[in-house]
Amino acid sequence: MRECSGVKLFDLARERALIHSTAATLGWDQETHLPDAAHPYRAAQLSWLTAKAHLLSTSDEWKAALEEGEAADKGGDVTLTANLREMRRQFDRSTKLPVELVARESEATSLGKHAWASARENSDFAAFAPHLETLLAIAREKAELWGYESEPYDALLDTYERGSTAAKISALFDTLRPQLINIGNLAVANSEARNARLPAGPYPIEAQKRFNAVVAKSLSFEFNAGRIDTTTHPFCTTLGPRDIRLTTRYDTEDFTSSLFGVMHEAGHGLYEQGLPQDDFGLPSGDAVSLGIHESQSRLWENHVGRSQAFWERWFPFAVECFPQLGSLTIDDFLAAIRRAEKSYIRVEADEATYDLHILLRFDLERRMMNGELAVKDIPAAWNESFEKSFGITPPDDRHGCLQDIHWSMGGLGYFSTYTLGNINAAQLFATASADPTVAAGLAKAEYKPLLAWLRTNIHAHGGTYDPAVLIEKATGAPPSPDAHLSHLFARYCASAI
Amino acid sequence: MRECSGVKLFDLARERALIHSTAATLGWDQETHLPDAAHPYRAAQLSWLTAKAHLLSTSDEWKAALEEGEAADKGGDVTLTANLREMRRQFDRSTKLPVELVARESEATSLGKHAWASARENSDFAAFAPHLETLLAIAREKAELWGYESEPYDALLDTYERGSTAAKISALFDTLRPQLINIGNLAVANSEARNARLPAGPYPIEAQKRFNAVVAKSLSFEFNAGRIDTTTHPFCTTLGPRDIRLTTRYDTEDFTSSLFGVMHEAGHGLYEQGLPQDDFGLPSGDAVSLGIHESQSRLWENHVGRSQAFWERWFPFAVECFPQLGSLTIDDFLAAIRRAEKSYIRVEADEATYDLHILLRFDLERRMMNGELAVKDIPAAWNESFEKSFGITPPDDRHGCLQDIHWSMGGLGYFSTYTLGNINAAQLFATASADPTVAAGLAKAEYKPLLAWLRTNIHAHGGTYDPAVLIEKATGAPPSPDAHLSHLFARYCASAI
Repeated sequence: MRECSGVKLFDLARERALIHSTAATLGWDQETHLPDAAHPYRAAQLSWLTAKAHLLSTSDEWKAALEEGEAADKGGDVTLTANLREMRRQFDRSTKLPVELVARESEATSLGKHAWASARENSDFAAFAPHLETLLAIAREKAELWGYESEPYDALLDTYERGSTAAKISALFDTLRPQLINIGNLAVANSEARNARLPAGPYPIEAQKRFNAVVAKSLSFEFNAGRIDTTTHPFCTTLGPRDIRLTTRYDTEDFTSSLFGVMHEAGHGLYEQGLPQDDFGLPSGDAVSLGIHESQSRLWENHVGRSQAFWERWFPFAVECFPQLGSLTIDDFLAAIRRAEKSYIRVEADEATYDLHILLRFDLERRMMNGELAVKDIPAAWNESFEKSFGITPPDDRHGCLQDIHWSMGGLGYFSTYTLGNINAAQLFATASADPTVAAGLAKAEYKPLLAWLRTNIHAHGGTYDPAVLIEKATGAPPSPDAHLSHLFARYCASAI
Repeated sequence: MRECSGVKLFDLARERALIHSTAATLGWDQETHLPDAAHPYRAAQLSWLTAKAHLLSTSDEWKAALEEGEAADKGGDVTLTANLREMRRQFDRSTKLPVELVARESEATSLGKHAWASARENSDFAAFAPHLETLLAIAREKAELWGYESEPYDALLDTYERGSTAAKISALFDTLRPQLINIGNLAVANSEARNARLPAGPYPIEAQKRFNAVVAKSLSFEFNAGRIDTTTHPFCTTLGPRDIRLTTRYDTEDFTSSLFGVMHEAGHGLYEQGLPQDDFGLPSGDAVSLGIHESQSRLWENHVGRSQAFWERWFPFAVECFPQLGSLTIDDFLAAIRRAEKSYIRVEADEATYDLHILLRFDLERRMMNGELAVKDIPAAWNESFEKSFGITPPDDRHGCLQDIHWSMGGLGYFSTYTLGNINAAQLFATASADPTVAAGLAKAEYKPLLAWLRTNIHAHGGTYDPAVLIEKATGAPPSPDAHLSHLFARYCASAI
């Protein structure tokens, strides 16, 4: 990527990355350490940074550098051309938003996240509703400014997954829905018949931390360029090219909640640690989309973390950390961690029913954006939809529409990428597993070959190719939900699990 | 302070405070959580922020706003006039430094702190020396650009304590030296005769954290606007008007090391929490000088924390946290925590010998700045001076010239403010104790009246008055070392302690 040094536009993009990563540092601190009374001032700090980055990337200087780069590009370097193409797309989107709106959104999300955390704690939707009103209004403003093909929601979806539209995703989800309901019902029936459960707690937090850190290290997560901390809602954030931080939360009654959380976030973290460091802040050094990002987390969490080979290696150490597991056979244990049931909380849902949670959110968001669903009516709409998909009703909003951080962060349009991620994960894992070196590693729960395959086929490309192109280059076929459905069926619906 | 709203200059100063406090947040994270491989990028982030703040406060816009403010000031408001006067002084100093030098210093200190931490760990002065060369050269460059009365060191001293010069401090220290040596010798002889010591450890870190937090709360340190974390070198930093963070380090053989560290840093923190919040970023809302800042930390650490009344209240809880203390009478315990001895480490030195550590550093720094002492000769010069003051020689540089973080942060000129702080602390405490309400509180180890006195007489004024004026307003007399010497003599040299 030598062509990307000495280009004025890329120097500006690196400066913007300094500002964004500074904001990410303040954001991380906000979630992990910020004293209560400090939130308003932190919001002002973040708002200043966001405005600075926006001003820079919509400046005349930036525009001139972009035009200069485009004029000089002779098309001989794929990465250079891809960087210019993506930066043109970003520039055209950014210049449509006034800086006042960007600063207002930053402040609204800082305050929104804070309000959400306590609203969730108290299951008090009314306390969060005014923040959500503000954030939804801002999302609508943005969609109108950006423009869209058929409906405002398209503009938001495109933010997270280049080229996706509500109509396309809706068509995909409509195809998936009956099959997912079928898989879910079979999986739940199988689990009820088998009735395997983990022994009761306590699973001490210190032992969970120890176990998780050893596992994350075995996946090659680099702790000299990252950390694991504790938050209400788990996430992975990038504070610099060599500073990737995961968070998790602990349940002393169930160690697998933090473990699979860490494996999930470590999947995101391994992707970030594998991106081309010298291009940090350029499209070629940044993740391409959330649907690809999520494919990495799901692959490590589900295809690796819930596999038989993984536990053949790690079950003895789990017993050492949590002696009560000694009462189980490894088959019982596998059945317990693959237990499918109808549950309220998306982040704790099993693989077999997970996507149904996403389909519900996609529908509600689309209606919110189209003005068909008012904020005050969200709790009732949520519960009604939930009952239709799962046959049960959340006991309170903490277990319903208040459970996720996304809306409080202004992340409308984000959720569908989780199911896209599941689909991509299965397709990538099926292809990688067909490689004999990767397969030999998987059999011994040694993951360097798998990681090397992902580094080469996904991570090294950053955002050079569009998500669908990247999947096709890596797997030899366009994106398709087949591998995901086969995987779920094989793991959850075969009679013996 | 209504006059300070609506003034354009003060809006700019508030923007600069946003940048500075953002940098402080990154600096705090750097000391507490930053992964190893992330240091170079963090240095670049800090360098960008420092340059931005410098550019803002030396801009034509800032200059015009300053001139406009000065022209409009009719002199009817003491705070307004003081803010303009101090901002003029700061502006004249800042504009003398090119932005390139400011960015270079920021990067050098980020790298310097990192190098110092491992050099100290390994007692490897050679690993730190090149960084110190760079930092000393930058300090000399700054002194030449700022200008000075008699010698380059004056320019640095003025940074931390308005109006102080090497000649003035040298005269004060020359007067103090024989009396301090006398007090030190008597104190050490008394302690040797009494030979009181704390029982052996371990003092578990969790119990220390519990004890320290309860004590910090009893001093009214506000935990909803602050925190306590762990670092190699303890400090207090301000991340926003309601975000004041202390750090400490733990010694499982001696709980008083972290306790007095916390009381010291909490003294700084109480001052920061007591400054006028609405003026955050203006001189009237910021600390006036390090000599006043340090008076607050010393007052709480020594005059409160090592007093008989304090321990009459807290000794029973200390015994609860650390059962081995049950073997001591409260008199034995007081004698142990007031034990004076000749020791190597400044931050662990007792009150009676502490100032001798400062006098040594002041001499060395003055010689470094005058070009009489080369970096490579510092370890030998340190050890020689140490032997003259204390009669013992440090076993290695970790216990000698590598012990303090200050030089690695570019903090040449800082040390003398510790002794100025001791002098101010004693003078303020003597005056406050003469107030009947304060005295009644002190007798019961209830510190709200003392804090209220400090809030009114020191904190509320921020940087409105020069340090000497502030002391005179608070105590009715100009600054003098008499109260400090009397306090040390009474506590350490009376025959019975």
